[in-house]
Amino acid sequence: MQKPSIPKGTRDFSPAEMMRRQYIFDTIRGVFRLFGFAPLETPAMENLSTLLGKYGDEGDKLLFKILNSGDYAAGLSDDEVRQASRICEKGLRYDLTVPFARYVVQHRDELSFPFRRYQMQPVWRADRPQKGRYREFYQCDVDVIGTRSLLCEVELVEIVERVFRALGIRVVLKMNNRKILYGIAEAIGHADKMMDITVAIDKLEKIGLEQVKAELLERGLTEEAVARLQPILELSGNNAQKLASLREVLSASETGLKGIEEMETIFGHVASLGLELPVELDLSLARGLNYYTGAIFEVKALDFAIGSICGGGRYDDLTGIFGMPNTSGVGISFGADRIYDVMTGLNLFPEGVGCSTRVLFVNLGEAEQRASLGLLRTLRDAGIAAEIYPEAAKMKKQMEHANRRAIPYVAIVGSDELARREVTLKDMRSGEQSSVPFGELVSHIH
Amino acid sequence: MQKPSIPKGTRDFSPAEMMRRQYIFDTIRGVFRLFGFAPLETPAMENLSTLLGKYGDEGDKLLFKILNSGDYAAGLSDDEVRQASRICEKGLRYDLTVPFARYVVQHRDELSFPFRRYQMQPVWRADRPQKGRYREFYQCDVDVIGTRSLLCEVELVEIVERVFRALGIRVVLKMNNRKILYGIAEAIGHADKMMDITVAIDKLEKIGLEQVKAELLERGLTEEAVARLQPILELSGNNAQKLASLREVLSASETGLKGIEEMETIFGHVASLGLELPVELDLSLARGLNYYTGAIFEVKALDFAIGSICGGGRYDDLTGIFGMPNTSGVGISFGADRIYDVMTGLNLFPEGVGCSTRVLFVNLGEAEQRASLGLLRTLRDAGIAAEIYPEAAKMKKQMEHANRRAIPYVAIVGSDELARREVTLKDMRSGEQSSVPFGELVSHIH
Repeated sequence: MQKPSIPKGTRDFSPAEMMRRQYIFDTIRGVFRLFGFAPLETPAMENLSTLLGKYGDEGDKLLFKILNSGDYAAGLSDDEVRQASRICEKGLRYDLTVPFARYVVQHRDELSFPFRRYQMQPVWRADRPQKGRYREFYQCDVDVIGTRSLLCEVELVEIVERVFRALGIRVVLKMNNRKILYGIAEAIGHADKMMDITVAIDKLEKIGLEQVKAELLERGLTEEAVARLQPILELSGNNAQKLASLREVLSASETGLKGIEEMETIFGHVASLGLELPVELDLSLARGLNYYTGAIFEVKALDFAIGSICGGGRYDDLTGIFGMPNTSGVGISFGADRIYDVMTGLNLFPEGVGCSTRVLFVNLGEAEQRASLGLLRTLRDAGIAAEIYPEAAKMKKQMEHANRRAIPYVAIVGSDELARREVTLKDMRSGEQSSVPFGELVSHIH
Repeated sequence: MQKPSIPKGTRDFSPAEMMRRQYIFDTIRGVFRLFGFAPLETPAMENLSTLLGKYGDEGDKLLFKILNSGDYAAGLSDDEVRQASRICEKGLRYDLTVPFARYVVQHRDELSFPFRRYQMQPVWRADRPQKGRYREFYQCDVDVIGTRSLLCEVELVEIVERVFRALGIRVVLKMNNRKILYGIAEAIGHADKMMDITVAIDKLEKIGLEQVKAELLERGLTEEAVARLQPILELSGNNAQKLASLREVLSASETGLKGIEEMETIFGHVASLGLELPVELDLSLARGLNYYTGAIFEVKALDFAIGSICGGGRYDDLTGIFGMPNTSGVGISFGADRIYDVMTGLNLFPEGVGCSTRVLFVNLGEAEQRASLGLLRTLRDAGIAAEIYPEAAKMKKQMEHANRRAIPYVAIVGSDELARREVTLKDMRSGEQSSVPFGELVSHIH
């Protein structure tokens, strides 16, 4: 019989991996809670009508569709079946944003706005699996919906700062504003070319000013437009200075000026909070998702080469797709898988995170077992994770078991110990051994 | 545009529900950890070959199948499609037991046995939805695999005791043993009629001895067999007494006697631990799943009418289906949904569990905001969940928002307070209001 396997692009998470993942999830959740965000969970399956058309044609192709139960395909023509229109009415969640928007619209009458929720659940995408890209992965989203207040953006900056400080990851938060990007395009007379311009700005460091200008001309910008763009391409200094020079260039664009104002307000609050987190205005930051309409965020790790580990932004009409227009919100999403890779790569997990048991009792037989069971109860009452090897196997075997599982303490209760009512406690890290009276065991576990 | 909805049999969990559910999950997880169980997660999708044939014909029908991505149905005949044999290769997890067995076999060489794992994930079943039965629901499983030691059964009894003590639910743990059930059937010469006999015993209280005997005769038992069964039907007294009388009846059945021994060992340990949890030998307990081979468990709430809220048992060949025979294990599963219903029905959730924010700062405008943001930071540094209403809306509206969300404290920092560097703190439960210096705010939140 061949070894069983799992679908490609999916993963089992071993205990060692799970405990590290839980450390990340618990840290993020803890920060979300500090800011008064409440948890929300939506079903793994949504109606296809909820999902289709929300992620572009590419996205539609990447949806996992669920076959209707029952005699799903009875009496259908090949064509009908190929369209999968009648054999599938449900699909797996592709992200947490659309289900969130669906939830808000569906429950609009029960909710008290502004509505603050976090959501940490897996999502599924029928992407071609490759290194670092999976068909099932977790997203950790936090959003406020129902207000245009920029205090929400400020709050998200604080959340980013707290999460990565808690995890010990040095990061930079890059911010930009869709209104500024649009304003730039508008100011140089190419409102339609916002994305081309952003891409060009993005390449500035790599290919240099002249190359970028050449490329912009290729992309159909006029000489004059490129000339107008020049000061933006050469923009330098701190956030305040950049915004100041932008003000001049964008003086003609109402939207652009609005974007500048927004960023000045956000940066102003952030400065007065005195966060250690570096926050940079980065005009090359665009974020793919086209529903963003204001500030956008992206977090990069400073000491590890990997894509952004957190990102998001302000959207003004996410719920419009479900018939509830003009409801502004802002949110960010933490990439648990990449954060895991960063922490593993930089060896940032605290010692002991990957260990489920603090004390393993060696099993030496009937009489000793009873004593051990009592002591186990005492340890657990004190909140110390402990267990007994279930069989009176060879001492060597039991010790190896403790070693393989990186259990820090082994407790031995043999007939001698039983007589003296003492435990022989072995610290597996130092190898030290000591005799501890039954009554004092708890205080010897560190 | 019509309101969006979710597939029937699935649920959204609102923040209020989620916080209560998390309280249950965190409690169960905490106990699992105390006993040295490590977390495991498996993918939502398994290969159909892993799932099919593991849950009986009924189970196969209840699997949610996932359409292959790409042009799944191209060039297929109607029949092929109807078999869904080539358009579906993956299905959604139906329980946590089969994926666990699959994982153990797949990773047998990396694992150190006995392997202790817990797993808390949703499962999906295409059941006809009805009250209390959903198509997506969580299971919380804990298992030890790779040992026949009865200490594991004892450990599970302790886990049951700790979980429900922590949740404040009064329960009785009913136990039985498949070997005893088989032994009874064997002893009265009807080894094939184990289930019929169990069902009959189960009805004893409802329909009485004579009725049960009549029914057994209908089911094909001989007069003699029924006579032999009589003492078992009339079994009374505590566990020890019941086991003692069983010993006589089952003297002819080696398997039966083994089962009695097992229960005597388990009950012996449990007694010496002096648990408050009532543990009853209940011969009418059979548990549907036919892979159980030893002790079986079922937990009933004492103060609330609902099915069992936790159950499980010993299995000797779960991994055999994947080609790894003779690997004994034992585990139980907690029913989070029913536990939720019990705790809601008995009003057992601690006060404040359903509240995400302790302090809401009223928003009175620009200058006040800055002061509030600083105070918020102090509160959060102290681990207190707090937020500010994002807009300078009418006081009434902001107060109502705090009320609807059951936030216990509202903090007011107006121009007067700003001048005095004091916060007006309102306890929303008592209605009391007090002036608190900025520096002392933390110590006033309880």
